[in-house]
Amino acid sequence: MEGQPHPYAPRDLKLPGYVPNFLTQSTIVGVYLLTSLLVVSLIWILSGRSRKITKMNRLLMCWWAFTGLTHLILEGYFAFSPEFYKDKTAHYLAEVWKEYSKGDSRYAARDAATVTVEGLTAVLEGPASLLAVYAIASGKSYSYILQFAVCLGQLYGTAVYFLTAYLEGDHFATSPYHYYVYYIGANASWVVIPSLIAMRCWKKICSAVQVHGQKRTKTR
Amino acid sequence: MEGQPHPYAPRDLKLPGYVPNFLTQSTIVGVYLLTSLLVVSLIWILSGRSRKITKMNRLLMCWWAFTGLTHLILEGYFAFSPEFYKDKTAHYLAEVWKEYSKGDSRYAARDAATVTVEGLTAVLEGPASLLAVYAIASGKSYSYILQFAVCLGQLYGTAVYFLTAYLEGDHFATSPYHYYVYYIGANASWVVIPSLIAMRCWKKICSAVQVHGQKRTKTR
Repeated sequence: MEGQPHPYAPRDLKLPGYVPNFLTQSTIVGVYLLTSLLVVSLIWILSGRSRKITKMNRLLMCWWAFTGLTHLILEGYFAFSPEFYKDKTAHYLAEVWKEYSKGDSRYAARDAATVTVEGLTAVLEGPASLLAVYAIASGKSYSYILQFAVCLGQLYGTAVYFLTAYLEGDHFATSPYHYYVYYIGANASWVVIPSLIAMRCWKKICSAVQVHGQKRTKTR
Repeated sequence: MEGQPHPYAPRDLKLPGYVPNFLTQSTIVGVYLLTSLLVVSLIWILSGRSRKITKMNRLLMCWWAFTGLTHLILEGYFAFSPEFYKDKTAHYLAEVWKEYSKGDSRYAARDAATVTVEGLTAVLEGPASLLAVYAIASGKSYSYILQFAVCLGQLYGTAVYFLTAYLEGDHFATSPYHYYVYYIGANASWVVIPSLIAMRCWKKICSAVQVHGQKRTKTR
């Protein structure tokens, strides 16, 4: 059960039974980027068949499909696989988290806040993101409020993720490279994009409520 | 620095410099309940002066004032007072958290997830709740989406709060009494009420967006 020495920080972290990565960084990242590109292209092409869907909504559908599948598959696997770092089968998803743990060892160490945030993201925001793809495509009235809700969940989750690391000393990255590329870089999209979408939904909803209110006042 | 023995669980928790409560449980809880009743009564009476504000909105204003002040004052004090358990001055807010820590010792122990959730609640949801009182009173178009956002923050925070405790063994209460009355009981309102308000806002927003959409289609 001793396992091999792990590459993670802090060095005194105990991970009995650890098995190193089988795949290289470029393979792991490459597969993720290519699969994501495939998903995004597919949604872009399919959504283009309907003339009713604006370009902005098509872009949003691509994002929601990409982020929803990331939440469900990648983060869902992590949330329910406490022993991924012992994996001997070169399982792609275990490889992803072994690699990402170099940016934040709390994943391998099963930190409660990290598992909680990833669990909530996978179970709630994963399916809700895919529902957003459908809601936008079919022009549902709950489309904006649903997107707003998922964005807020993503932003709250990211805030908990970063703040707990900060309060615990922010010493979970193998190297500055892994800190900036994995821990900061890979998470930055989930700060910037949800913020932009949330602001857009806020404006859309306010203008709808305002018009609705004016209409009701006039009808009286 | 040894301090007196603390009453919290787990028993091996180290709290050097701990000073026991000066006020009794009934004084601490009584002051909180009476102050809250005062705030709620004040908002109810003041909001009653305007005939435009519905009874439901007056109730909501009472809730947002109560919860906003709880977030700002009680939770704000905790978030920025890491050494409250050493307080020798019988400071009311330190007394509150010394007492509440009997239901969840992670407060005294400065658990990162607890501090993060309380910090976010105090800094973001506190002011936003008070803004909701104003937004409802003055019929702002952002009233529903603001209330919805704060509810989601409260619900996400409570989820992180309970799930991290569960993942860490759920052994932080001094007794079953403290577990059910403080840990479960005191937090239950922040699960039930935000859920109800969030559902109400969701419906209001959907119906406004739907009417807005229909109107735009007709105008074309």
